[in-house]
Formats: sequence, structure tokens, C-alpha cells
Amino acid sequence: MADPFFRLVATDGAARCGELMTPHGIVRTPAFMPVGTQATVKGIRPEEVRACGTDIVLANTYHLMLRPGAERIAALGGLHAFMNWRYPILTDSGGFQVMSLAQLRKIAPAGVTFRSHLDGTLVELTPERAIEIQGLLGADIAMQLDECTKLPAAHAELERAMRLSLAWAERSKRSFVGAKGGQALFGIVQGGDDAGLRRESARALVDLAFDGYAIGGLAVGEPQDTMLRVVEETTALLPGGKPRYLMGVGTPEDILEAVARGIDMFDCVMPTRNGRHGIGFTRYGPVNLKNARHADDPRPLDSETGDRAYSRAYLHHLVKANEMLGAILLSQVNICYYQALMQGIRAAIAAGEFEDFRRSTRADWSRGDIAPITPAVPVSKRGAAS
Amino acid sequence: MADPFFRLVATDGAARCGELMTPHGIVRTPAFMPVGTQATVKGIRPEEVRACGTDIVLANTYHLMLRPGAERIAALGGLHAFMNWRYPILTDSGGFQVMSLAQLRKIAPAGVTFRSHLDGTLVELTPERAIEIQGLLGADIAMQLDECTKLPAAHAELERAMRLSLAWAERSKRSFVGAKGGQALFGIVQGGDDAGLRRESARALVDLAFDGYAIGGLAVGEPQDTMLRVVEETTALLPGGKPRYLMGVGTPEDILEAVARGIDMFDCVMPTRNGRHGIGFTRYGPVNLKNARHADDPRPLDSETGDRAYSRAYLHHLVKANEMLGAILLSQVNICYYQALMQGIRAAIAAGEFEDFRRSTRADWSRGDIAPITPAVPVSKRGAAS
Repeated sequence: MADPFFRLVATDGAARCGELMTPHGIVRTPAFMPVGTQATVKGIRPEEVRACGTDIVLANTYHLMLRPGAERIAALGGLHAFMNWRYPILTDSGGFQVMSLAQLRKIAPAGVTFRSHLDGTLVELTPERAIEIQGLLGADIAMQLDECTKLPAAHAELERAMRLSLAWAERSKRSFVGAKGGQALFGIVQGGDDAGLRRESARALVDLAFDGYAIGGLAVGEPQDTMLRVVEETTALLPGGKPRYLMGVGTPEDILEAVARGIDMFDCVMPTRNGRHGIGFTRYGPVNLKNARHADDPRPLDSETGDRAYSRAYLHHLVKANEMLGAILLSQVNICYYQALMQGIRAAIAAGEFEDFRRSTRADWSRGDIAPITPAVPVSKRGAAS
Repeated sequence: MADPFFRLVATDGAARCGELMTPHGIVRTPAFMPVGTQATVKGIRPEEVRACGTDIVLANTYHLMLRPGAERIAALGGLHAFMNWRYPILTDSGGFQVMSLAQLRKIAPAGVTFRSHLDGTLVELTPERAIEIQGLLGADIAMQLDECTKLPAAHAELERAMRLSLAWAERSKRSFVGAKGGQALFGIVQGGDDAGLRRESARALVDLAFDGYAIGGLAVGEPQDTMLRVVEETTALLPGGKPRYLMGVGTPEDILEAVARGIDMFDCVMPTRNGRHGIGFTRYGPVNLKNARHADDPRPLDSETGDRAYSRAYLHHLVKANEMLGAILLSQVNICYYQALMQGIRAAIAAGEFEDFRRSTRADWSRGDIAPITPAVPVSKRGAAS
């Protein structure tokens, strides 16, 4: 019987191209999910996020449960209406932010209690409550509550957190049975950089039969080769007919290499966060617009594709002057770059040319940014402080 | 002979409706100019500024001469290309910001020297240099350098500053003769709240024959009735065939009342600054989206006109969460509100119904915002910190 949630369209080596069928439309995979932490992809209107080629965004359960509150969003018609994004949404379970942001957290088998980083309110998050909240938000894809461990970590600690996450996975699954129709639930493989623990986690989760499987506990400080090794070992243990989501990843190179190892979904704050810090992603690698070499450069950031209306000189000026428009334009440039990369990846897999695409994309990144130009007209010192 | 720069389309009492013909297109008056201090209207893309009904923006000579530098902008093709705004631009002369922002300023008959608020560089600004800079920027409308005095001020101080501004007006005019074709130059009436000084300033400027006349030195701390009295007295002294620009004004009410007294042009940071601080202007007055009464309100900011995609609850959330999108959306709401007001004013004057429009607009403002609603579904305390 065909899976009503996921179908594979093509494979090329370990790389896969497919479709997620959600209540709010189709998600083409491999998919990159821009992060809308507080019900907004920072600095970009939803119609612009969409226009970049985005099929799905991620929203953060932890942030939204604290402010404005899941029940409030439900009463307002759900997260899609609230944030004016009528397309698919994946919500995380809140676990990752509880571990990284909340104060005085206490992890127990029942769940985790913590103080809100906003106002110190004591909050309890259990696997059941995480499912309930994601139902209230109306997520198309919900995630189990898990415990994510920073790397490096001792084996015993990784094992404890993995087993707790497994127990929570089972309770999440049970609690999810009553969730409203069409929503999908993903389990999260934990186990750090330990192949044995990852294997145990993956097998137990597959026995629980989730709609998809995430690999958590990576992009938490480990070297890239460790991450890719764990991805490769883990995807080999996951069923081919279900989507695989590498949480919190990553750089364009991380994404390309993880796709090559069978990953279908990604999320990362990098395009918007780097955009706010003056970095623009291009086919030839990231460009730091803060750099004075752009001050007199009339060329657009990308001379072949991308928005030609704004010069590097103007972007440099906006970034130096700390103007909102700099963050806005570069965040959009970066989301568009990531989505163009995903589109290139999908087309290459469908055409059976993924290896060529991977090689040429890496070659472009290695080439690096265009050379700076010397201004044609010398800039007088008078009244022109740089 | 018809004035190549300004033509009156209609008058209704003292209120006037007209057109400025500039090298970058027509400006319908009365006109509101959003402020693009650092070559960007804060938080809004140029195409959105335009879509709100904006014919012309203002840019600040002081800021742009310091960063990125007027010669640099000229080498990059001028301010219109630099900021991707292909429509009319008015630049101020820099005088106002020198007085309010710069450190260690020294005013002499020759000009003003000051230290940049950015890096302490010593800069000299003369009437001639102000004209040169505005030519380098490529402004459609340039302003003379003037000295603006805060109110209240002693008569002797107002007189000194007014006479200095007059002397600078003459030098600006002389220096402007060589400016490139199509650019217009405005003189600035000074004299504070003193009718006699204003009269002397206005008459001497009119003798110099500028393309338009600004009223400076208002919106600097005086009560509204003082401002309107000075406006009324001053417009009576200005030639009917030339545009009149009330600098730095103001609230929607200031604008409506100044139009009633014969003003054609305005600029103010209020729509964008207030937007960044959570205020949305509506037909029924300003609404503070920070207020908790909006937290559960599914209605749009303006239920009859305006953007219906975002609820008050969502705008409240964005403002409370300090999300860029809150500032972006409210800045645009406010620019659009101001431009809709100007369009209403122009249509009413053209139809000979300005008094009706003024009365009904004031009645709407007095009515105030819609009443808050009680949420239909009570918001649970659990996991929903507000």
C-alpha cells in the first residue's frame, strides 16, 4: 500500500528525491526548512519566504508555548493563520531549546521542568504535552520530545539520554494516536557519536513505526566528518520508504553531503542569522558584506543570478550603517540561495546526475568570490569619511 | 510663462493641490515624503514605499556625506541608483542634523565645522559644499544650508540665526546656478516664533527667487498652535505659484491643519519611527500594539481598509517578541496610512470638499480605536505564559 505521507520520486546513489503530502500541500524533498522561531522567519514576509521557493517552514514549540501560548494560537485559528503562512509547517518538540535556553531545568522520566527564559515562570513539558501543544499549533509535522546531548559527551550520558528519548518516543506515539487527521509524527534518533547507541535508537524507533525519522543530537559542536559518519551509519538503519530529517543542519556543504548520504529534510537558522550579520551566500561561497572591499563595488552580490537591483556597495553601506534593510535583503538572498541549492539538488537527483551536480557545486564554492574592483573615480577625502 | 517646476491644479480656501515636475517624475501635492535618512526608508523596501503611494522620499545630506560619502555615491551613479529608488528625491542641506547630532560644532559666517558623530572626523559644511553634495547625490530638490534654532529661544538668537540663514541662502543660490539641469532649490524661512523675523526672512528669500520655499525651525518643541500660527503668517507672505514645504512635520493632524493653511509638502520620521515602536496609525487614530488588549484579538488593525492578512494578536506578538517583522509591517502600515491621508486630502481639494474632508477625518480620529474583544476561548494558564 502506498504511503499516504511520503513517496520517493527518484534515487541516485544514496541521494533521494521525493514528496511529503501534508494537509497544507506538498513538500518537495530534499527540503530546506527556514526557521520561524517565534512564528516569523526573521526579517522576511511570508510571501517572500514562499517566493524564494520554500515549501515548508519550521516553528519552535518552546518559544511559542511560552509566548504567545499554544492555546492562544489555537483560539486564533492555529499557527498557519496566525503567521499568515498557509503552507506546510513542522514544529519541533521544544526539547532542544529547553536544554539550551531554559533556566533551572530538571530532567526526570516524566518530563522536563524548567523556568521560562522570558519571565521565570515554572513550566513542565512532558512527551504528551509536547504532542498536545503541536496539535494546538496545528503543525503538519510534529516531533517527539527528546533529550539532546551536546558533543563531546561521556558514553554513559549519551546512553542515558538516548534511552530517555526512546521512552519519550513511545509515549509520544501513544499520545499522538488521538491527534487530528493528517498530522505526521517523527521519531528522533539519538545516541551522539556512538554507532552502537545510534543503532539501538534507530531500531527501536523503527519498531514504533513513525511517519518519518529525524537524526537529532548532531550539529552540536562535533566535527563535520563525525556528523557525516553518524548520518551515513544511521540512514542505513532507517526504512527507505520514510523521510529522514537531519535536525539543525547546516551549511550548504553540510546539506549537500548529507543529501549524498540519504537525508531528505533540513532546518537551520544560518541563512537568516548570517544575513543579519552581513553575510550573503552565493554560488561562489559566502561573502562578508562588512568588508571594506565592497564599499565602491557597483556590482550585484551575484552577477549572474539573484537580485541585480542592489549593489555590493549599497549592501555594504546598509550593513555598516546597521540598517534593517541590510538584514532584510541579505536574509532573503540567503533563503533564496538555500532554496536554489535544494532545487538544484532535486533536479540533479531526478536526472540521475547528482554526482556531477555535487562536484560542480563544490568546485564553484572552491572558486570563491569575484575579485574586488578598483573604483573608477577616486573618492575624495573631503566630506567622505568611510 | 508657466513654471516648469510647479503647477497648481486646484485650490480650496487656503488649501492647494498641485504637481511638482522633477527629473524623476511628478510629485502630487500636498505630498508626504517618507524619510530615508541613510539612503533607506527604515525597514521598508523601495518597491513597498512606492506601492504605498509615495511619490518622493527625503534623504539626509548630513548622514550620507559622512557615510558612505557624497563622492562615493556619485561614482556609483547617484543616490537614485544607489538606493534603488528611481523616483523623486529631496535632500535636506544637512544643517538640521549638524545642529542636533554633531559634536563640537562651531558656527561661523563661512559655514559650520563639526565632528562626525560616527568617528569624530572634523568636517566643514558651507552653503557651497551643501549644494555641491546635493548635486553629487543627484537630488531632484536641494535645500539651502540654514541654521535651525530650537524653541523657545531668545529674540536675539532667533534674529542672528535667521540672518545667517539668509546670508547662506544667497550663497546657496549663487552656488546653485552651476548645478545640473532640472534640479530645484528651495530657500528656508527661519525666524522661530517671531512674526517680524519670519516676515523679514520670507521677503528676502522671495526676492532671491527660489524654486520653492520651506518653513524651517518648526516642529522643534513649540506647541501646535504656535506652529500653525507661524505657518499661517508665513504662507501669506510666500508667492502662490511656488511650492511650500513645512520641514519635519508631523502628526496626521499637524499635516491636515498645515494643508488648510497652504502647505504643499511634508516630511517626518513619525510613520517609521512609531512603527518600530509598536504604533500603527489608523483612520481612528494611532493604536499601540504593545497593549495587552490586542493579545487575543483576531481582527486586523483596520477592519475596513489596510492589510487583512495579519491580526492584531499577531502584530502584538511580533512587537512583544521584538521581531523585525513587527517593525516592518507597522512601518509599512504607517507609510500607507500617511499616503492614503494625502491622497484623501488631494482628492478633497480637487473636488472643492476639503472642509468636509477635514471635518470627517477629525471626527474619525476623535472616535478612537475599536473596542477590545473578549477572547471566545479562554486561554489556559498551562504552558501559556503571557
